[in-house]
Amino acid sequence: MNKKSKIGIVGATGYGGIELIRLLSSHPHFHIYSVYSSSQEGTMIKDIYPHLSHESWRLQDIDPNRMAQEVDLVFTATPSGISSRLVPGLVDAGLKVVDLSGDFRLKEEDLYEQWYQKPSAKKSYLHQAVYGLSEWFAEEVKESSFIANPGCYPTATLLALAPLVKSRLIEEDSVIVDAKSGVSGAGKGLSSVTHYAEANENLKIYKVNQHQHIPEIEQVLKGWNENIQPITFNTHLVPMTRGIMSTVYARAKDRMTLEDLYALYLESYKAAPFVRIREKGKFPSTKEVCGSNYCDIGVAFDERTNRITIVSVIDNLVKGAAGQAVQNANIMMGYEQQTGLNFIPVYP
Amino acid sequence: MNKKSKIGIVGATGYGGIELIRLLSSHPHFHIYSVYSSSQEGTMIKDIYPHLSHESWRLQDIDPNRMAQEVDLVFTATPSGISSRLVPGLVDAGLKVVDLSGDFRLKEEDLYEQWYQKPSAKKSYLHQAVYGLSEWFAEEVKESSFIANPGCYPTATLLALAPLVKSRLIEEDSVIVDAKSGVSGAGKGLSSVTHYAEANENLKIYKVNQHQHIPEIEQVLKGWNENIQPITFNTHLVPMTRGIMSTVYARAKDRMTLEDLYALYLESYKAAPFVRIREKGKFPSTKEVCGSNYCDIGVAFDERTNRITIVSVIDNLVKGAAGQAVQNANIMMGYEQQTGLNFIPVYP
Amino acid sequence: MNKKSKIGIVGATGYGGIELIRLLSSHPHFHIYSVYSSSQEGTMIKDIYPHLSHESWRLQDIDPNRMAQEVDLVFTATPSGISSRLVPGLVDAGLKVVDLSGDFRLKEEDLYEQWYQKPSAKKSYLHQAVYGLSEWFAEEVKESSFIANPGCYPTATLLALAPLVKSRLIEEDSVIVDAKSGVSGAGKGLSSVTHYAEANENLKIYKVNQHQHIPEIEQVLKGWNENIQPITFNTHLVPMTRGIMSTVYARAKDRMTLEDLYALYLESYKAAPFVRIREKGKFPSTKEVCGSNYCDIGVAFDERTNRITIVSVIDNLVKGAAGQAVQNANIMMGYEQQTGLNFIPVYP
Amino acid sequence: MNKKSKIGIVGATGYGGIELIRLLSSHPHFHIYSVYSSSQEGTMIKDIYPHLSHESWRLQDIDPNRMAQEVDLVFTATPSGISSRLVPGLVDAGLKVVDLSGDFRLKEEDLYEQWYQKPSAKKSYLHQAVYGLSEWFAEEVKESSFIANPGCYPTATLLALAPLVKSRLIEEDSVIVDAKSGVSGAGKGLSSVTHYAEANENLKIYKVNQHQHIPEIEQVLKGWNENIQPITFNTHLVPMTRGIMSTVYARAKDRMTLEDLYALYLESYKAAPFVRIREKGKFPSTKEVCGSNYCDIGVAFDERTNRITIVSVIDNLVKGAAGQAVQNANIMMGYEQQTGLNFIPVYP
Repeated sequence: MNKKSKIGIVGATGYGGIELIRLLSSHPHFHIYSVYSSSQEGTMIKDIYPHLSHESWRLQDIDPNRMAQEVDLVFTATPSGISSRLVPGLVDAGLKVVDLSGDFRLKEEDLYEQWYQKPSAKKSYLHQAVYGLSEWFAEEVKESSFIANPGCYPTATLLALAPLVKSRLIEEDSVIVDAKSGVSGAGKGLSSVTHYAEANENLKIYKVNQHQHIPEIEQVLKGWNENIQPITFNTHLVPMTRGIMSTVYARAKDRMTLEDLYALYLESYKAAPFVRIREKGKFPSTKEVCGSNYCDIGVAFDERTNRITIVSVIDNLVKGAAGQAVQNANIMMGYEQQTGLNFIPVYP
Repeated sequence: MNKKSKIGIVGATGYGGIELIRLLSSHPHFHIYSVYSSSQEGTMIKDIYPHLSHESWRLQDIDPNRMAQEVDLVFTATPSGISSRLVPGLVDAGLKVVDLSGDFRLKEEDLYEQWYQKPSAKKSYLHQAVYGLSEWFAEEVKESSFIANPGCYPTATLLALAPLVKSRLIEEDSVIVDAKSGVSGAGKGLSSVTHYAEANENLKIYKVNQHQHIPEIEQVLKGWNENIQPITFNTHLVPMTRGIMSTVYARAKDRMTLEDLYALYLESYKAAPFVRIREKGKFPSTKEVCGSNYCDIGVAFDERTNRITIVSVIDNLVKGAAGQAVQNANIMMGYEQQTGLNFIPVYP
Repeated sequence: MNKKSKIGIVGATGYGGIELIRLLSSHPHFHIYSVYSSSQEGTMIKDIYPHLSHESWRLQDIDPNRMAQEVDLVFTATPSGISSRLVPGLVDAGLKVVDLSGDFRLKEEDLYEQWYQKPSAKKSYLHQAVYGLSEWFAEEVKESSFIANPGCYPTATLLALAPLVKSRLIEEDSVIVDAKSGVSGAGKGLSSVTHYAEANENLKIYKVNQHQHIPEIEQVLKGWNENIQPITFNTHLVPMTRGIMSTVYARAKDRMTLEDLYALYLESYKAAPFVRIREKGKFPSTKEVCGSNYCDIGVAFDERTNRITIVSVIDNLVKGAAGQAVQNANIMMGYEQQTGLNFIPVYP
Repeated sequence: MNKKSKIGIVGATGYGGIELIRLLSSHPHFHIYSVYSSSQEGTMIKDIYPHLSHESWRLQDIDPNRMAQEVDLVFTATPSGISSRLVPGLVDAGLKVVDLSGDFRLKEEDLYEQWYQKPSAKKSYLHQAVYGLSEWFAEEVKESSFIANPGCYPTATLLALAPLVKSRLIEEDSVIVDAKSGVSGAGKGLSSVTHYAEANENLKIYKVNQHQHIPEIEQVLKGWNENIQPITFNTHLVPMTRGIMSTVYARAKDRMTLEDLYALYLESYKAAPFVRIREKGKFPSTKEVCGSNYCDIGVAFDERTNRITIVSVIDNLVKGAAGQAVQNANIMMGYEQQTGLNFIPVYP
């Protein structure tokens, strides 16, 4: 008999939160038991989001001990700076936690405080949290009860870079990532940058050399190859709602062929159901993964420059947030990682 | 044991066709057995649509007798003018058919030829086909094996008008429908009107007083109230991919209250799982149904003018095409109408 | 010798204000002498708007007497509720004023307070202000020194309706206006409705039967035909930055022909350089006037219903705001109305 | 007395052509005398483009000798592969020519044929044509009567790279250009890539390592520094109509400071009225130049990686095509380069 796991969602009113609701609503083994909020307790979610007008969730206050009795696993889709204070209590209460914020991804407190300009969570929790890039750390995730879900840009970028870095085929100081995101990545908070008349028909670079995802990416890359040097990483805001593309450049140490490069990627991801490698000479577009948990990747080698270009795309709210969180929860709970996530992109 | 029905899709390479693939892929009782095309036989669908790159369907040629042995039910997502010639053979071969074109919706050959400017299908087939507006003709659909799936605009418009027309609350010559659609409604065929640089940042009215969905709407309205006079119906192209809004105006015969109007709609759709009535004073937006089979409706009464305004929104490719087609197939096959369609809108 | 008139702009940091700067910068007879703000005194405009980074205006405080010595004419692009308190002082100081807010358009204080839900300006100023729909009130504008510049929706709607209403060809209780606007019409202020991720790929109806432009339109219509009854007027937010379309419906009193209707519009606007009538059977799109001061109009008559459809489009920030304000200023100052406004739409 | 130069436009029905019409219509010294087309002779331009419905140009056939008698200067906005055959006749007839195609930019026939996959123009014409990057080759333009107007991507990229390459501050093999363009750059021709439903809400990389603008950029860079090695250059299609951003990466040969870098750019462009350098720490967005002839540039230096990032934005149809063409024509004819081009960007 299929007894479903009981799930709680904290921060259900942000874009990550409602995407968790969308994905979990059709999950065969997970049941959303309750949604929680410290600031909007008592509010019906459908009063904030009419697209959920057929649902009747009311936001509950956050009480770790009560929550530990109510649910088996909690997704915390709270902002950075909030999770650092909230999540330890949930972990201590014995709950399994998948945290979608950036607060438990970096292992060094100093690094966090330098890039996030906020107080870090305590070191013990930083070390307890497993970095949930599902395709590469599934074993660790399976053994853990506390997951730091990767950032949207790091997910796209690390899945693009992993085969190159692990195989040590590229010059260690040659990595440049030119990343682009749809506007939903900026979240639900209002700002002039995300004001429609300003963001529409506009392409904007932001946080040049200063994005907080830089140390997250470098930490993982160095775990794969300790010689990797600081990367150049820039982010652009694209006038569309969903989607991230990472265009990754690196110089090959030695001559290689496109055939070799393609074979490397096919082999690297042959067991990864959500990573689709495009045929030689073809490259993915963001719309081709919209609404889905796929990360699509295309590869190129340029003989003129000896440079490799890797293009990866994800839906920032799915594989870049809620989808990968569910994927990690599946692995933690012993289900197949694709469970409840095998839907087709919404196209066009 | 769950033995799935075998499904065929004809015209799988259009936007209606790939939406059928998306919806049917997660349907618990339907299994896509094969996809068919007269013009692209032998082509892999993933070579046309990289978002389906994990799928391996190859387009098969159309042979009604072979198809009748292979599958239980066929969706024909072929254009108007093609279905009229193709579908009779499938019906005659004994297949259950849900046709998404406009070729079998009008019951009069003359009317079809006047508004579509093409030769009509034979009258016998016109009469055999049941008009599949699921919420209002479920009984007829259940008894039928050949469904004419409603057009996108008629679905939004008729669901908005049905309670008013059936209850005879409005002046019969007062109906004006100002309809707006996203660009995917124009299909996959190239044209300057759907060229990005022309359609983007543009709002365009088209087919003024001449849209072929006018007689379809009027035919159904007259079935509900034989005194309904010709309607005014205009369509606009909105710079977005998915979504239809029908803003419907009609004059009340007698004084009424918003309370009465709201109660009428609640009552009319209390058993309709895909119709959601907004609270008094609230109105739906197209994004609130994107990717889903919902039709959301808001109602207003203006005492200054004695006019009623009904606003209905659908995703033109789901409730306006593939979703309603699956809903009809569910009803035909004896399943609950929501089967496989209970997903949440993709928001934002 | 060409001595330029000295111009002041109050409220230069809103979208109406920066559009005035754009238009006036290339005006042969107007010179922007200074820009004013009560709240941002001392700020450089280029620090708010980098697209003006080659300009060096610094916002000055508002002092009517000093302003009267500095400049000849002031455009007040301040919000409703602010203009009502600010403008009388400027008028009293002897300045020519073109006010872009809604505060001086309605002649009845009660009507203003009912629809705007704010205190009205004093009646004497309401009566002093001339309603600046340039095409129809040029004589009054020429004699005035205080113009209430029309709203964006009223401009598009009244230019569409004027020939019909003045010629008394339509049933007086039959006017329905289905209006649609780009998002810049909501201004620079942040709100969840204008948050990119919410407004993009979305079509939203708002202020159903309650838009404050309703009494403005009715006041002018009744001035043309005292028998005109309350109109139905609804507004929709379209995912684009600029552009308004008014789709206007009315029933003809008597049978008419498209030929007659078309001739009426050609004749009505033969001396109006900014109104372009589309040929019979053709209709304008919003992009066709983008960035320009044109109002393009298409007309249709439907014999099935005896209803007339008039479609008018404007750029809401130009003909719907700053452009018409300059047009009025031209007329007030004795220049040709097109002066400085004869540029071609930005297309595509 | 102001006697205007008579201008002809060949290829007036493409996006480059109608942008020339927009810009030249308000030019004080240029008068559009006639528009020409080989394929659409006799057609009224307003029948193709309703935004020009107040204009009455009729397309004339192309006869170089007659044209030489009619006009002083011709802009050829014809596609690559057409200009190579058309322009020599115009040049030989004694006309001044500004060609907007790519056919006369590369000096080597082989290079052209390799990257364009088309027959090259004759070598003598390649050498006769002056490459019209106005900011850097004004002297040559002034002496010439035949200009090869730069490509859109090369304009943005070369203006970004010029100060670095000319000053020899960067490692010669370190240049990577990640370029992004709005969809109007693909022109008026229909294709599935520019079909609205495919391009909207989508970010697509294209012509990876294969864009025909690569040799154009390298040719100019090598003219400035013969040691420059092949560059990596990739292009992305962004869901907006207008705008190009080049994000340029290069490694500094020696340690430098942001202060030095900023000073270099200020100095390099101090006499360039259309290049605006953003303050340190600020970067331009494409919308900030929309509709204008500006190229806005921001600079960054990252001490972690010793890499320089230069961000440049242009309107692809203005500074990237028609605007720079007019700028070059101004220089050729002895006018100030800004003549007729000093308008403010359309914002928002």
